[in-house]
Amino acid sequence: MIRFDNDYAEGAHPQILKRLFETNEEQSPGYGMDRFCESARNLIRKACNAPEADIHFLVGGTQTNTTIIASVLRPHQGVVSAHSGHIAVHETGAIEATGHKILPLPSEDGKIQADQVRRVYEEHWNDATHEHIVQPALVYISNPTEFGTTYSKSELEELRTTCLECNLTLMIDGARLGYGLASEDNDLPLADIAKLCDVFYIGGTKIGALFGEAVVITNPALKKDFRYLIKQRGGLLAKGRLLGIQFETLFEDGLYQELSKHAIDAAMTIRKAFEHNAFKFKYNSKTNQQFPIMRNDYIEELSKKYSFHTWEKVNESESVVRFCTSWSTKAEHVDSLVNDINSLKRRE
Amino acid sequence: MIRFDNDYAEGAHPQILKRLFETNEEQSPGYGMDRFCESARNLIRKACNAPEADIHFLVGGTQTNTTIIASVLRPHQGVVSAHSGHIAVHETGAIEATGHKILPLPSEDGKIQADQVRRVYEEHWNDATHEHIVQPALVYISNPTEFGTTYSKSELEELRTTCLECNLTLMIDGARLGYGLASEDNDLPLADIAKLCDVFYIGGTKIGALFGEAVVITNPALKKDFRYLIKQRGGLLAKGRLLGIQFETLFEDGLYQELSKHAIDAAMTIRKAFEHNAFKFKYNSKTNQQFPIMRNDYIEELSKKYSFHTWEKVNESESVVRFCTSWSTKAEHVDSLVNDINSLKRRE
Amino acid sequence: MIRFDNDYAEGAHPQILKRLFETNEEQSPGYGMDRFCESARNLIRKACNAPEADIHFLVGGTQTNTTIIASVLRPHQGVVSAHSGHIAVHETGAIEATGHKILPLPSEDGKIQADQVRRVYEEHWNDATHEHIVQPALVYISNPTEFGTTYSKSELEELRTTCLECNLTLMIDGARLGYGLASEDNDLPLADIAKLCDVFYIGGTKIGALFGEAVVITNPALKKDFRYLIKQRGGLLAKGRLLGIQFETLFEDGLYQELSKHAIDAAMTIRKAFEHNAFKFKYNSKTNQQFPIMRNDYIEELSKKYSFHTWEKVNESESVVRFCTSWSTKAEHVDSLVNDINSLKRRE
Amino acid sequence: MIRFDNDYAEGAHPQILKRLFETNEEQSPGYGMDRFCESARNLIRKACNAPEADIHFLVGGTQTNTTIIASVLRPHQGVVSAHSGHIAVHETGAIEATGHKILPLPSEDGKIQADQVRRVYEEHWNDATHEHIVQPALVYISNPTEFGTTYSKSELEELRTTCLECNLTLMIDGARLGYGLASEDNDLPLADIAKLCDVFYIGGTKIGALFGEAVVITNPALKKDFRYLIKQRGGLLAKGRLLGIQFETLFEDGLYQELSKHAIDAAMTIRKAFEHNAFKFKYNSKTNQQFPIMRNDYIEELSKKYSFHTWEKVNESESVVRFCTSWSTKAEHVDSLVNDINSLKRRE
Repeated sequence: MIRFDNDYAEGAHPQILKRLFETNEEQSPGYGMDRFCESARNLIRKACNAPEADIHFLVGGTQTNTTIIASVLRPHQGVVSAHSGHIAVHETGAIEATGHKILPLPSEDGKIQADQVRRVYEEHWNDATHEHIVQPALVYISNPTEFGTTYSKSELEELRTTCLECNLTLMIDGARLGYGLASEDNDLPLADIAKLCDVFYIGGTKIGALFGEAVVITNPALKKDFRYLIKQRGGLLAKGRLLGIQFETLFEDGLYQELSKHAIDAAMTIRKAFEHNAFKFKYNSKTNQQFPIMRNDYIEELSKKYSFHTWEKVNESESVVRFCTSWSTKAEHVDSLVNDINSLKRRE
Repeated sequence: MIRFDNDYAEGAHPQILKRLFETNEEQSPGYGMDRFCESARNLIRKACNAPEADIHFLVGGTQTNTTIIASVLRPHQGVVSAHSGHIAVHETGAIEATGHKILPLPSEDGKIQADQVRRVYEEHWNDATHEHIVQPALVYISNPTEFGTTYSKSELEELRTTCLECNLTLMIDGARLGYGLASEDNDLPLADIAKLCDVFYIGGTKIGALFGEAVVITNPALKKDFRYLIKQRGGLLAKGRLLGIQFETLFEDGLYQELSKHAIDAAMTIRKAFEHNAFKFKYNSKTNQQFPIMRNDYIEELSKKYSFHTWEKVNESESVVRFCTSWSTKAEHVDSLVNDINSLKRRE
Repeated sequence: MIRFDNDYAEGAHPQILKRLFETNEEQSPGYGMDRFCESARNLIRKACNAPEADIHFLVGGTQTNTTIIASVLRPHQGVVSAHSGHIAVHETGAIEATGHKILPLPSEDGKIQADQVRRVYEEHWNDATHEHIVQPALVYISNPTEFGTTYSKSELEELRTTCLECNLTLMIDGARLGYGLASEDNDLPLADIAKLCDVFYIGGTKIGALFGEAVVITNPALKKDFRYLIKQRGGLLAKGRLLGIQFETLFEDGLYQELSKHAIDAAMTIRKAFEHNAFKFKYNSKTNQQFPIMRNDYIEELSKKYSFHTWEKVNESESVVRFCTSWSTKAEHVDSLVNDINSLKRRE
Repeated sequence: MIRFDNDYAEGAHPQILKRLFETNEEQSPGYGMDRFCESARNLIRKACNAPEADIHFLVGGTQTNTTIIASVLRPHQGVVSAHSGHIAVHETGAIEATGHKILPLPSEDGKIQADQVRRVYEEHWNDATHEHIVQPALVYISNPTEFGTTYSKSELEELRTTCLECNLTLMIDGARLGYGLASEDNDLPLADIAKLCDVFYIGGTKIGALFGEAVVITNPALKKDFRYLIKQRGGLLAKGRLLGIQFETLFEDGLYQELSKHAIDAAMTIRKAFEHNAFKFKYNSKTNQQFPIMRNDYIEELSKKYSFHTWEKVNESESVVRFCTSWSTKAEHVDSLVNDINSLKRRE
């Protein structure tokens, strides 16, 4: 079985394992105060062109989202998110477990737009009984989104402007950030992302690391006491060096960018095979997740050889599926899939 | 600088890194549903002689304590703990952040006794206004404790009996469990621990793993929906296989026991050196943490070469210090320390 | 200004004030352990034909909803509610502040139906990654709803059956319960309500009392330790007798029913005036809240003399408004409003 | 049975009931936006000599403590309190239920001193791993305390200075504030209390009202969005006017002071009777709670006629008891008790 069902099916890039091996016997202080973390922080600051940013390393995405949100909000405040946002759907109510409501916005493509955010803001403050309603205070977006789509620079700028005008904090869930940066449509380099939000994170788990998310806090008002929050939410790894070593490796010589590009190239090859064969797509994704619409018998046939996710039903005979590539996707697996896609249609 | 200041200063046992390397390219399902986790669960069930137990793998201790406690308690219930318990002191209020009060008991040696627990129970239920007071429902002990002391079989049996009589759940924080099992005084094999409590965990972070704690739930009433709780509390590792691989390695051929014994042997060698030179100890620890009382000038002298923790002041001229060994403590470091301890006194 | 804008604009029915006055000097134990509460509990058990029910008195609705929900749910569980449910909209995230997500269902009329609930249940348990999603465990309905609509007996029976089949708890927010019971369409007597859910409450604040909600727990599994929860959530009134005295007065000689009917009669008179003049309604309410659709200039004109709520815009020239009657609505105010409604149209 | 067991055994002062009756039919907006609340707020601002203070009315003490604390603290911060503080003992973990740890300080008399607070602060910040420990951020004191003792002006000034120096917020639980103000030893007028803390509240429930606590926020940094918090915590009374009417009545013509003095006079008469007969006291209280130490047979004898609280055992033959007076204590009950105290000893 060849897996295209997620982007965390393997371990880590061999270079990372090598570095873990090389440094294994070195003794270092715990909880992220080691030299590897310090070096990784500097590399990330540089990559983000954000010399003043605070950088923290956490183990996973749910932990990271929860910690950021719990740190930013007062008890009566909520977080605005696309209805399909990861925090709204797939974190078992972790955000609510910190006491905060998610204020969902409708979205076709996983993105939310500045005017939607402004409307939420205005509706709240125009309501005479607004004290009876959760106050919007933070805007959560993921980039790429859960549907593989990405924000353009102008979209993000508009969100940023709206947030500043409405006194809202803007955070970006970058669990798949590298795959967005490497997308051919992308006009948002890392430095712009750092500049256009208050806090975001750079996902490692899905891009070459064993695990790990690097939080970048650019807004000074959000920096205070963040390490307490990490500890309280269970995200302060005893052997924090493990995160430092991984992110140092990823950001030292462009490995993060390289691995991201690898996944995108694979995804685009698969996308083109579907396009070439006149398949339609549910979402216009130029990143590592592809959502073609297929006949159910085709799905059944491909399922014999590949594992992938059946996303949702379109009608009685067709469904949306998800093919997911990653930093470790093998060329021969892509070739095999392309062949099989081509042959599906040839038989018609 | 030779580190005796904690038991998580290095990476992992080489055998673990080797297995991570060997399995790195294998694709597996996420979130602990892989074959490594399944194998590790079976090995642990066998080691605990608890064929029906549920086993879950989490990344770190705070996360594990929080998840267990949040899963067991209703909102008005609290957890009884020694005043010095890790949850009461060093987790930045993680338990309170789940909504629960810790009911602290005085303790000289880090342990609590059955009669103390019974008293808490009786005081609560004898109070006419008990509904105004947090209800004790869970008893938390750590074994070994934060002071290196351990429970005897009879002590644990009494706690168990009391908990059963008082309808209290009993949990054991085993972040350093292996070091307790390997202690020369220990009369509590793993199977007895499994039998004498409702839920406990086997620490990997401090005993040979990169990270990881294995929760063992023996009380069927506590099993339901535990994975939801792990996910909600941010403890469900995407690449759960990393935990499976590590615990499989530790429990396959007795590596966990072997590494634990290594640390205890080193600790006993150091202990004997202190004893031989007539130092006194703050706590009667037979595990990997040793708490001798030293003159401050001796502490200063040793600090030039070794890092260790100054625990607390005894008087103007003496303090308690902590020397911590681990699975990876090097024989030459122990020898060096023993020599230096001996020479401290020789100079008098 | 004549107020039709809510049902809590005045104090309490004079009979209640009289009883407070008469009993004022009597000394009684606190926190609901007094003879008035005991008597009120018995009267309510009788009125509900639920001799085994536990009855508790709380001060207000938000408090009551929060306490019930926090008592029923484990941390990973959520509460299903109409999108428009009071807990989902107007309680400043009080439910989320207890850690629980609200799972909103679309609703045109404020009600949810059994098949919607079943779908939520099935979607959850059919999802392979359901542990990443909040588990539906409690169904919240309000009767009457926030839009004045009510459940029929068959609708409630279907909900009940579905909840039993899906292992879901069913709660009813009865902040305006009396107005539902007194509605001419109602086929759900109090005893049936008690029988067809696990827990509900009888609102006093909006029906003749100064304040107060009476929780009726019929499902024995939900009774345990409920008073702890009330205390923890700030709902245990020191002078609990105040609640006992009020509910005793309301349920002794049918006052609750009488006051409810008074409000409904007034509402129906107003409704008929609107109908007579060919106004349409947003919701088909037969209870004390009426939602006619009016031209904006009419709204402006009526606003000079009456206060009422402009609910939502229909188009550029029309809006939905809400007229609310209560136990204390005066006949001359209703007559005046009816005249003014009639004259609005006469002028056309 | 004559009750001296608490200060909330009766209803309210007749003047309050009268005003509730007189205003009963007036229609007013809800949630504290009415003219009575506005007037009461002004009267309290004047009484506190705090023209800029924000005043809010809540129903009860647990609610008020929870709301203030939840509003002030970030998630990783805790509240310093005497071990015997009401929040630490008698609120069923309501504070922990908002996510915050209480940091208890030892206290013989229910009070805490500035040097204790400073030590907590220094211990925290001097700890190298302070991020693993709950950060002290708020100091909670009650005045009078749960043991009837009161703070002197110099004690409160020192606390205030320490809090300012340590960047700690200072709150005062004034559930029995009037009884402290009326104490013969008191050198802290209301205006000084307002000046020497950041937020406090004036208890009505125990001093003449049916219920109600008036929160006074003098620190501008704590004012923002407080009404959201009240609503979220279930403390925003629909008919907020009831609180306005009561506090207006209490603060209009000095009724609050008068009722407080009444209770203190009664308490001092009882105290003198005990002193005259050479009884000792557990606490040196000059307020409405008196804690004499009595032989158990005396306790038994008095219990036939009076209800009072047996506080704690002193030895096999003696116990501490609590006699509580209030605004409504009757002169003939005090006289009767004094006679009986005198006769206890005469018989010896």
